Amino acid sequence: MNEALLKEYQDWILKLSAYQMALTVIGIDKQTVAPSGGAAYRDERSSILAGELFSIETDPHQVEVRKQLLREADLDGDTRKAVELYDREISHICSVPKDRFIAWTKLRNESYEAWHRAKTEDNYSIFEPYLKQIIETSREMYGYRSSTAPLYDQMLDDYEPGMDQKQYDAFFDRLKERLVPLIQKVVKAQPIEDSFLFREYPVEGQKQFTEHLLSYLHFDSSWGYENETEHPFTDFICENDCRTTTKYRLNDVSSAILSTVHEVGHAYYEHDCDPAYDGMILSLGISSGMHESQSRLCENYLGRTLPFWKANYPALQQIFPTQLNGVSAESFTNAVNASKPTLIRTEADELTYPMHILIRYELEKGLFNGTISTVGLDRTWNQMYEKYLGISSSTARDGILQDVHWADGSFGYFPTYALGSAFAAQFMNTMRSSIDVDGLLENGHYDELMGWLKEHIHTYGCRYDASEVMMKATGEAFNPDYYLDYLETKYRNLYHLEY
Amino acid sequence: MNEALLKEYQDWILKLSAYQMALTVIGIDKQTVAPSGGAAYRDERSSILAGELFSIETDPHQVEVRKQLLREADLDGDTRKAVELYDREISHICSVPKDRFIAWTKLRNESYEAWHRAKTEDNYSIFEPYLKQIIETSREMYGYRSSTAPLYDQMLDDYEPGMDQKQYDAFFDRLKERLVPLIQKVVKAQPIEDSFLFREYPVEGQKQFTEHLLSYLHFDSSWGYENETEHPFTDFICENDCRTTTKYRLNDVSSAILSTVHEVGHAYYEHDCDPAYDGMILSLGISSGMHESQSRLCENYLGRTLPFWKANYPALQQIFPTQLNGVSAESFTNAVNASKPTLIRTEADELTYPMHILIRYELEKGLFNGTISTVGLDRTWNQMYEKYLGISSSTARDGILQDVHWADGSFGYFPTYALGSAFAAQFMNTMRSSIDVDGLLENGHYDELMGWLKEHIHTYGCRYDASEVMMKATGEAFNPDYYLDYLETKYRNLYHLEY
Repeated sequence: MNEALLKEYQDWILKLSAYQMALTVIGIDKQTVAPSGGAAYRDERSSILAGELFSIETDPHQVEVRKQLLREADLDGDTRKAVELYDREISHICSVPKDRFIAWTKLRNESYEAWHRAKTEDNYSIFEPYLKQIIETSREMYGYRSSTAPLYDQMLDDYEPGMDQKQYDAFFDRLKERLVPLIQKVVKAQPIEDSFLFREYPVEGQKQFTEHLLSYLHFDSSWGYENETEHPFTDFICENDCRTTTKYRLNDVSSAILSTVHEVGHAYYEHDCDPAYDGMILSLGISSGMHESQSRLCENYLGRTLPFWKANYPALQQIFPTQLNGVSAESFTNAVNASKPTLIRTEADELTYPMHILIRYELEKGLFNGTISTVGLDRTWNQMYEKYLGISSSTARDGILQDVHWADGSFGYFPTYALGSAFAAQFMNTMRSSIDVDGLLENGHYDELMGWLKEHIHTYGCRYDASEVMMKATGEAFNPDYYLDYLETKYRNLYHLEY
Repeated sequence: MNEALLKEYQDWILKLSAYQMALTVIGIDKQTVAPSGGAAYRDERSSILAGELFSIETDPHQVEVRKQLLREADLDGDTRKAVELYDREISHICSVPKDRFIAWTKLRNESYEAWHRAKTEDNYSIFEPYLKQIIETSREMYGYRSSTAPLYDQMLDDYEPGMDQKQYDAFFDRLKERLVPLIQKVVKAQPIEDSFLFREYPVEGQKQFTEHLLSYLHFDSSWGYENETEHPFTDFICENDCRTTTKYRLNDVSSAILSTVHEVGHAYYEHDCDPAYDGMILSLGISSGMHESQSRLCENYLGRTLPFWKANYPALQQIFPTQLNGVSAESFTNAVNASKPTLIRTEADELTYPMHILIRYELEKGLFNGTISTVGLDRTWNQMYEKYLGISSSTARDGILQDVHWADGSFGYFPTYALGSAFAAQFMNTMRSSIDVDGLLENGHYDELMGWLKEHIHTYGCRYDASEVMMKATGEAFNPDYYLDYLETKYRNLYHLEY
């Protein structure tokens, strides 16, 4: 082994991670507390630092160092994998001419502004020309790569390596087949009483409960911190520095709670990665779908269960005795699982949620395969909602303009949300057969549940592909039936449907 | 004018300011919310970024660029001044051999740890050897500079350009002469009732009042943000991004309030600098003393007055009706001005505070002029307290170990605290003759008071020396009698002393 070469590579990673850390901290600061008036000043300087990072990332000398490293016969497997991942990432960055990359960044910023304006004014026509250009320009961006795969397949692969339209089509077909009739039955069933969730819950009290909850989740100040933002997110600096955010809603007591459980699920994925990977590309999660599987497993498969609420509901009821007067832990749990077709994806329940994703997947596919146009896309959107959920929006704000993803040029991302839920069901099935999930939840041993995920998933970072991790953790290839069986059993029981 | 040269210089500043911003944001984050477990990871990467900043700062090519710039006959005055300030700063950095600079940084870190341990264990002998070495090594560090001035004069000049021992001696002699007898009279007078300040004030209520207070101070989210830390501080990124912190004490209602007014005073100095200086060295305050003059002006000369409390006390009393039952705004104001010799500098009242500084000044002088030894310094400390304040500490923790400054190698800093109070008195005297300070305070026009400071002090950044700004703002050279007259009048009235 050429140790000098290895050292050069490691120093490069250290430097890279210093700039990444700076930009991450600046980003978190910006989104949580930074005064608005300083935005222009900070953004100008952030882009200088981003430029420095770009130069370090794409340093031709380092490309050469990595090439030589791969030729070393005794290079360890971890480093080999990491080098391959860096090369993949950097080849994508480098394939685009610099002036076109800058133009693309500029367009995305303008497009974001236009989307925001359009949403505020509830007017899709403001956003439409930008969306059209975003689609055209991302087509151009992918054109610089050497891949011959269909464009949308490349996009899907960026967020979920190994997945393409063929596989997603099969996945979503299976979902449609089983979930559409189930949703229709639930719609006709006796609704679940959940009005108490939407009483007035002063934010101070909700924050007090969050303290209890974070302690229950073992998300403590030695490795994590939760802040508040308009849109909750998770970001991380290293295994022992993971940040989450939540949003409190005065008239919705479960929103901040479940979003906290969700985001802390993401945080655990980063926290529990092999410490040897800290600061390296291997410490990242495998894919968007795999990341989402961990957050959704925590939110839905743990956070919406009766044992979870048996442990946590008394504290909540003590803070809000009036609002939750006469409501049992069982009724509360049923309420947070109630299902009803609604317009907004981020507020959708567990059962109807995948339909929101299916709709976006079909639209993206059509947009890139040329069968759907941006003109009239607001109407196409509503037709899809009518078809799959039996509802449609009278406003663009609650329809096509609800999500920011397309304004940012993120196509191919949405499908991973549904895939993550399905991954989670399969993991959960194995986990339940290995450890006493309900007992651990009810008796405050959330850390042991996370321990199982750490051992079977988190520790690997992105050392292995999603399919390999699925095989390692569950002993089987990915099978969406675990997800569909879970939803069917859960909602048949909850709504007393006939089998 | 060689425009290309000027552009090169400006690009260098922009790059410099990007790294400074990154390190500032990372520093604020670390001190306020960052999870403790990530400290080692973050610190390692911060030092990489600090190293990059160092390389940019000391870039020999840029030294050349600045030299050439100074030769340009039509270089504007602002740029000329800025170049001189950069050169001064960088020549100090560059004078030290790199390995010695690293050793110095390491020693300061170790010394900080030793100080912390010594304070925790209340044992000065743990810290003494480090203090000795810190003094020896800072002697070495200054030795690399080309100055022939006495060592302690150089240190004083670093924090307050233009000040030396001769001038400080004259200043402190004048203080001793008039304040020592005044303090003795106050000690013998009828004490002011202030026990209600130290009842139990739940932090949630204090935070609620802070929201009211920040709004009164016009410190809003467009340009500022306040957080919580163990030791309050102010830092800033640009004119429209100024951060302060405060600390809430359960049994001291005025502590967080007055520390907020103090820190926001620092923030205004940065906020109200000429926007053309943003991101440049000219945007910094002139000196520690001048900065302290602005925070103390706000805290003491505004925040401890009756008109200030007439405006703010009702809101406080409404939040704490039980604790402040029967306490009038007048009694409350008197209480926050009560004076009594105490051991801890940071908790000292306005009258005894300068004695704490005088003691430290005399000790520092002796340590560097060889008349005082680190061995037995804890006893020397107590003798000084006995001499000037008539009290002494039975613990090292509340005696010599109370401040962090010496552990960090910051000698010559303390005297600026007293100087700042004296500067403030002179500014205040002119301000009161120009605008209706009491009326503006009482009627919620704090922004107009800040407007006066902006026009006469803040806007200049460090474009002019302290003496020039004093002359511009007050029409006179600095005269400590304004300060002593103010204290004498105030405390004679407060304690009903005979003239």
